[in-house]
Amino acid sequence: MLESSVEFKEISLYGKRLFLTNDQCTLQEFPENIAVVKQEGLNSRKIKPTDTIVSVDGVKIGNGNLVIAAGPCAVESEDQTLEIAETVKKLGADMLRGGAFKPRTTPYSFQGLGKSGIKILKQAKEITNLPVVTELMDISDYEAFNDVDMIQIGSRNAQNFSLLKFLGSRNQPVLFKNGMANTITEWLSSAEYLLSGGNEKIVLCYRGTRGFDNATRFTMDSGTIPVLRERTHLPICADPSHPAGNRNYVEAIALASVAAGADMLEVEVHNDPDSALSDSKQQLTFEEFEKLVRNARKIAEMVHPKMRIEG
Amino acid sequence: MLESSVEFKEISLYGKRLFLTNDQCTLQEFPENIAVVKQEGLNSRKIKPTDTIVSVDGVKIGNGNLVIAAGPCAVESEDQTLEIAETVKKLGADMLRGGAFKPRTTPYSFQGLGKSGIKILKQAKEITNLPVVTELMDISDYEAFNDVDMIQIGSRNAQNFSLLKFLGSRNQPVLFKNGMANTITEWLSSAEYLLSGGNEKIVLCYRGTRGFDNATRFTMDSGTIPVLRERTHLPICADPSHPAGNRNYVEAIALASVAAGADMLEVEVHNDPDSALSDSKQQLTFEEFEKLVRNARKIAEMVHPKMRIEG
Amino acid sequence: MLESSVEFKEISLYGKRLFLTNDQCTLQEFPENIAVVKQEGLNSRKIKPTDTIVSVDGVKIGNGNLVIAAGPCAVESEDQTLEIAETVKKLGADMLRGGAFKPRTTPYSFQGLGKSGIKILKQAKEITNLPVVTELMDISDYEAFNDVDMIQIGSRNAQNFSLLKFLGSRNQPVLFKNGMANTITEWLSSAEYLLSGGNEKIVLCYRGTRGFDNATRFTMDSGTIPVLRERTHLPICADPSHPAGNRNYVEAIALASVAAGADMLEVEVHNDPDSALSDSKQQLTFEEFEKLVRNARKIAEMVHPKMRIEG
Amino acid sequence: MLESSVEFKEISLYGKRLFLTNDQCTLQEFPENIAVVKQEGLNSRKIKPTDTIVSVDGVKIGNGNLVIAAGPCAVESEDQTLEIAETVKKLGADMLRGGAFKPRTTPYSFQGLGKSGIKILKQAKEITNLPVVTELMDISDYEAFNDVDMIQIGSRNAQNFSLLKFLGSRNQPVLFKNGMANTITEWLSSAEYLLSGGNEKIVLCYRGTRGFDNATRFTMDSGTIPVLRERTHLPICADPSHPAGNRNYVEAIALASVAAGADMLEVEVHNDPDSALSDSKQQLTFEEFEKLVRNARKIAEMVHPKMRIEG
Repeated sequence: MLESSVEFKEISLYGKRLFLTNDQCTLQEFPENIAVVKQEGLNSRKIKPTDTIVSVDGVKIGNGNLVIAAGPCAVESEDQTLEIAETVKKLGADMLRGGAFKPRTTPYSFQGLGKSGIKILKQAKEITNLPVVTELMDISDYEAFNDVDMIQIGSRNAQNFSLLKFLGSRNQPVLFKNGMANTITEWLSSAEYLLSGGNEKIVLCYRGTRGFDNATRFTMDSGTIPVLRERTHLPICADPSHPAGNRNYVEAIALASVAAGADMLEVEVHNDPDSALSDSKQQLTFEEFEKLVRNARKIAEMVHPKMRIEG
Repeated sequence: MLESSVEFKEISLYGKRLFLTNDQCTLQEFPENIAVVKQEGLNSRKIKPTDTIVSVDGVKIGNGNLVIAAGPCAVESEDQTLEIAETVKKLGADMLRGGAFKPRTTPYSFQGLGKSGIKILKQAKEITNLPVVTELMDISDYEAFNDVDMIQIGSRNAQNFSLLKFLGSRNQPVLFKNGMANTITEWLSSAEYLLSGGNEKIVLCYRGTRGFDNATRFTMDSGTIPVLRERTHLPICADPSHPAGNRNYVEAIALASVAAGADMLEVEVHNDPDSALSDSKQQLTFEEFEKLVRNARKIAEMVHPKMRIEG
Repeated sequence: MLESSVEFKEISLYGKRLFLTNDQCTLQEFPENIAVVKQEGLNSRKIKPTDTIVSVDGVKIGNGNLVIAAGPCAVESEDQTLEIAETVKKLGADMLRGGAFKPRTTPYSFQGLGKSGIKILKQAKEITNLPVVTELMDISDYEAFNDVDMIQIGSRNAQNFSLLKFLGSRNQPVLFKNGMANTITEWLSSAEYLLSGGNEKIVLCYRGTRGFDNATRFTMDSGTIPVLRERTHLPICADPSHPAGNRNYVEAIALASVAAGADMLEVEVHNDPDSALSDSKQQLTFEEFEKLVRNARKIAEMVHPKMRIEG
Repeated sequence: MLESSVEFKEISLYGKRLFLTNDQCTLQEFPENIAVVKQEGLNSRKIKPTDTIVSVDGVKIGNGNLVIAAGPCAVESEDQTLEIAETVKKLGADMLRGGAFKPRTTPYSFQGLGKSGIKILKQAKEITNLPVVTELMDISDYEAFNDVDMIQIGSRNAQNFSLLKFLGSRNQPVLFKNGMANTITEWLSSAEYLLSGGNEKIVLCYRGTRGFDNATRFTMDSGTIPVLRERTHLPICADPSHPAGNRNYVEAIALASVAAGADMLEVEVHNDPDSALSDSKQQLTFEEFEKLVRNARKIAEMVHPKMRIEG
């Protein structure tokens, strides 16, 4: 335990001891030269130049291979989820996504199966061995997420700082989406709530921002990915399904994201999209997903070696 | 207790018994003709044509008089808060605003005094008799807000549906801000989480949306207020401080909001803005606030009788 | 004629001789201390601290009185235009607006009467004495605009720099609208094309920007007006009709604009809005216009003395 | 020559005679079943299901091969332009871009060499055989563009309908950029001004839209390309340089655009970017361009066969 006249918090991150302080202070006041410069933050490449690799139950995100998480928008039933999980695994998915607690625009839409949805996802994992990523909306629901492989923070909670602080204190992988009106700077500042708590297993997931043209659901700026790559060492995922809002556009947006340098894709796939209880227009059929995987992996192979800034 | 083959939830709202259902059903299946049409929602003027008046410890919002809530961005100390509270009361404020739990863009900024901030606000109320409005960020902090006069939901939590559902089940006045990238339709759909829980004391607070010009902090669309007035019976507040981001522009935005029909203003005022721990650029001095109150009340007197759609 | 080693252009503006140069130079190289600092531009209050007043055939814009231009979106016929002109005059309008050359989103919409539309406007002026403001879309149409009282540059031509340069060389009043995606800085930079040609009769007309919510047609940021007032000496007009896109919202936006400090309003009024050949939803009836004028003038009287920064 | 009671205009487009009418009419009134449905427009795939191929002096755009136009933002001198033209040809460019008439945000920036710039571009073509694309800003400058291979319409003139109508009557290839606040529907409606005049040689060039994050200069929505592909038969170009605003991001955006299905790229390349008279930050060095070409062609080979909807 250090002693210092400056108030600080000690965390361990990426194998280093770090001392966070809000005070103006010189490095000499610390026994090690590692006080964090507030202006940059722990997310910055200036603080950590090498790419971070996040491991989710053995699946490595950010090591140059493209990781694909796939599954339904919402867990609707055991049968539906198991069928989708087994099929997307066969078609090349590395992880299973699925929503149990659903943030819906109106209270009159299907709100998800809640805890029993989480149970179904765990069953699917037992059968397929695919690590699971699923969304947590509120601290009060956390108990069910205690042993979930990766916790998703959705766009609507991207500046729910209480929730972020809470997850910062857990050492569980987080897939952290951007808020739909957040600048890149604001998004990285929000990630700082996770990192400064000592949680280093953060993957940023870009899902587009609010735009003025309703031809698609959200605007998927391909410039965002190289900007993130330049500024931060954290791995980058892209969600092509929500910005598309229409399955006809999902593959093009997915391939664009991989070509721009994404390490991971999170794609909505359903065994019967037209009957889905949510996001029915944008979930892919198995056939569409198969083609997406094939093409995305080809582009990834070509692009990844050159897009990565070596550590 | 009703019996029905259709699943429903009974709430009491605006003096009526209401039966909410997600199922397709005809009105005959209900013993009273009051099942809610989902497409409109409880916020709609089609459901309730008359203006709603929300009473906050005796201060009536939406009855044709302009209500002004004023106070510091953040509660910083007892002295600061009491001085501001007493002065804004003298200058014509009807309510006291002040943040104890602060949603800050980065974890390295001042995060608010928390529970002790709430205590200071209650002291200020005892002395000034001004009802207090203050922001709640997370369900887990609610205990301290149990007897707060009005709970503010900020822009970053505007789609934190867990928090909204929770407050829907309390019968406490809520000042509900729009999310910075939400359409009016989305905002009203979020308000539905509060109303459908049976909480009828909802005031909408418009604080601008994200725009592309950083000449101001947010874009304060003067068309939003007449659209809200047409669509919903809920009272409308405007926050001119956050969209301005600069005290030079606050009065003009406040007067524009009142001229467009706002029932209430929430304004940041500080005894020493340049030394404030947050939002120092946009908090008004007492002199600036005095002028704003005088002019806003003149416009309100002129505009309000004609802007209101009679119930 | 001056001699100088620096390349410059001499113009006369607001009663002063000015020497514009793009070169880096010290003031000593000029015989008078009036070379323009490029970073600010001729539109800036730092260059000219006093409010500019633009006179349009005797109607003074920017002198503290609210000027109201009203008329149809498009000149459709002699009868329609004369009826509208005479009525809006009676109801308190100071100028007549009306489009003869119409920038329509598709080529299959009514494109305006062109030259014969201009003739009708001139007839209307002879009868009513209202100065006319009408839109010019292209240099090649200018001949018909030679003796028009005020030339409008629309949002779609706000960065048509060839057209702006051309009008900079004419000494005719210009009502200059903002481009729908232009920042305030870009808009003022475009105004510089007019001013640097020596045309000092420029009125800025704010008509809102593109936003993400289609509840209204454009976003009318009430913060834009105080920002303009702070930065520039040019008079400010507001067009509430286009951002509203719906006659129900026009008055509220108009009053908000005046409360925020606008010197002038340009409002679409039609004798039979529902049958109008363009913008039928947003043109006011005579009754609606009468109410708007009455209320706008009351607010203007109250607000204007205090909003103006004295020169 | 046809006779009809309906007013119409006859044009020849894609080898068909077409009769355009604004009137409501049944097909029987025409001697051939080819009256245009206004709601769709000539740009629509419903009118012409097969992909359009535009030939620019022998270079075919839209036939499945990726066409790359490269060159400086502005023609600055003969030496600069020739060096760049020869080098980009060697590195794989198919066309030369370069601005002679420059739309600059302020009148105090370099405005381009004008006619003499066009002459330099023609010299460069004589030497390299690369067809030239260069921007026309105003009808009054057209004479110099009479024999230019391809005329560019820039973002600021995307709704300059007078200019579009004029070019609709010429049979010259047009590279038509989107307006920075235009929806896809508005952009295609503007293209209709070109097509309905009988000019069928239109290539749409997507250059991003105005967004709220200044981390890049414009927002390059990767969803725009598949939406265009679905709606229109016209070939699609992408300009990665302007949305990037920074050479570090140009390649990622270019690759994303090709992966999303673009037929063509227009890229700014300079022999000495840091000394360029305009857009110095976003112009690529020769080395950067070489890498971009190599990677873009690899992705194009892989993606194009599958992205194209066969006619």
